[in-house]
Amino acid sequence: MIHDFAGKETLNKIADNLKPYIHRTPVLSSEQINKIADAHIFFKCEMFQKTGSFKVRGAMNAVLQLSDEQKEKGIITHSSGNFAQALAYTANKTGIKATIIMPHGVVASKRDAVLGYGAEIIYSGNQPLDRENKCEEIKNNTGAVFIHPSNDINVIHGHSSCAIELINDSEKLDAVIAPVGGGGLISGIALGFKNFSKDTAIFAGEPANADDAFRSFKSGKIIPVNNPNTIADGLKTSLGNVTFPIIKEMVTEIFTVTEEEIIFAMKIIWERLKIITEPSGAVAFAALIKNKELFKGKNIAVILSGGNVDLNKLPF
Amino acid sequence: MIHDFAGKETLNKIADNLKPYIHRTPVLSSEQINKIADAHIFFKCEMFQKTGSFKVRGAMNAVLQLSDEQKEKGIITHSSGNFAQALAYTANKTGIKATIIMPHGVVASKRDAVLGYGAEIIYSGNQPLDRENKCEEIKNNTGAVFIHPSNDINVIHGHSSCAIELINDSEKLDAVIAPVGGGGLISGIALGFKNFSKDTAIFAGEPANADDAFRSFKSGKIIPVNNPNTIADGLKTSLGNVTFPIIKEMVTEIFTVTEEEIIFAMKIIWERLKIITEPSGAVAFAALIKNKELFKGKNIAVILSGGNVDLNKLPF
Repeated sequence: MIHDFAGKETLNKIADNLKPYIHRTPVLSSEQINKIADAHIFFKCEMFQKTGSFKVRGAMNAVLQLSDEQKEKGIITHSSGNFAQALAYTANKTGIKATIIMPHGVVASKRDAVLGYGAEIIYSGNQPLDRENKCEEIKNNTGAVFIHPSNDINVIHGHSSCAIELINDSEKLDAVIAPVGGGGLISGIALGFKNFSKDTAIFAGEPANADDAFRSFKSGKIIPVNNPNTIADGLKTSLGNVTFPIIKEMVTEIFTVTEEEIIFAMKIIWERLKIITEPSGAVAFAALIKNKELFKGKNIAVILSGGNVDLNKLPF
Repeated sequence: MIHDFAGKETLNKIADNLKPYIHRTPVLSSEQINKIADAHIFFKCEMFQKTGSFKVRGAMNAVLQLSDEQKEKGIITHSSGNFAQALAYTANKTGIKATIIMPHGVVASKRDAVLGYGAEIIYSGNQPLDRENKCEEIKNNTGAVFIHPSNDINVIHGHSSCAIELINDSEKLDAVIAPVGGGGLISGIALGFKNFSKDTAIFAGEPANADDAFRSFKSGKIIPVNNPNTIADGLKTSLGNVTFPIIKEMVTEIFTVTEEEIIFAMKIIWERLKIITEPSGAVAFAALIKNKELFKGKNIAVILSGGNVDLNKLPF
């Protein structure tokens, strides 16, 4: 499969067009954490992004690419997590209708956030396949444009804006580490770095309990996971036919981390940086700690991808 | 009692001298929180300060005022909380010896932070009076200089640097709200605002379960609390003869808040701002929410005073 990857000019233009809708999130460092990790770490803090995660970058870019006719039909996606909020926010800000397919048992705070942005929720079964079928059905009935949470080149190009900011706001980076679930973020980061900082090595962190990206990367073909169980609930989805080729080509290594390692990394970030990262958001840092010998003394960027947590269900 | 309050020039000089040792902490706002509170709020984020709270501002200024002879004797204080860490850090950075009197049952993370900065800990009883007596005894034996965590004019002047940053980094402020325990922070904030933004009204928030400042303020004389019980453990101490006259003269009103109101405010800050505030740090915001009719549509600064929490003992 051949991708029409965007080059510097296109990615810069996309990042510029996103600016009115998103935050340029801060890059933070901590002397204490640098000591623990024995490296100079630049944390890209996407919990401070609109809707609490990086997802709004891709959602907004995908919507900005739509024709007027498409916008009139509205947009639709299936997500129980951060992409749902991001797409609902995006639709609200651009004045178009959004429909989100969510599982019946979705957390009230996530449901309320989506409703708060004025999107319509349609509830479906608890299996991903239920939601995909329901999504397809409604799309066919209404003509709404389906936007996939990760396996969509416009979503990916939107996420590259995160890499561009990071490169501009850090020192020269030896490596960058991002979490991988469906692969949208790491693909966008990879494209951004290959274009604007090509000597930076690109790594991904993944929960060992949902290690489809690791296994796909090692075997050379997509091996999806079925219904994985991990605290990093944003990383349960599998790679797709758009994200996998980018990852295969541009990522140096995928590191898996255990549930305990994720919680430990999350705790360090909360305690030392005094910021809220969700478990998925701590996975890249967990991968760094686990492999610190590799990164000793280097300048490393770590993407903290989001901060939407249920405070009543913390792992501490 | 007549105080030798510092004026603009002195406070500016103190703030300048502190710069190499402290962070200029960010001032954050949130559209969502502004909607909830129906005001434009500027959060001064002291959880990002060195050692995780504002206390280092005052501790460092107190040490910078010492003569070489005094520095040689070392410094001593009694604190089970943020001032202990702040003074230990201060001593470490200025190369002097610090002794901290702590209760036997002090939380391991706080003990370790103090030891990590190279300070000596001497354990004493669990009552404040035990610690004060032990402190007096060691001071008399060693000649170490005692620095009180709040009731010390140099500590207070150091805290004024927080007000100066806040005034420079916000829009014109109608009011500022800070938490009150021993009164060091609110006194420093009050002096800073009276000098640099005299039309800003100054308010304090206090736990109803430790409302000595409220009662002292209302009655016109210091009424200490004895062993109060509140989740806002940084605000258990009572006003002193240095802080009370400043508060009496410069503060417009002291608002008390319940334990539930403190936890609710803390939760909003964690969920919406995605930052960690300790219960004491959320008290000023709790006071604002409780009295929002007073502040409707105004520009209000809220001091989030610290972020040192025990993640294993969260109130959610």
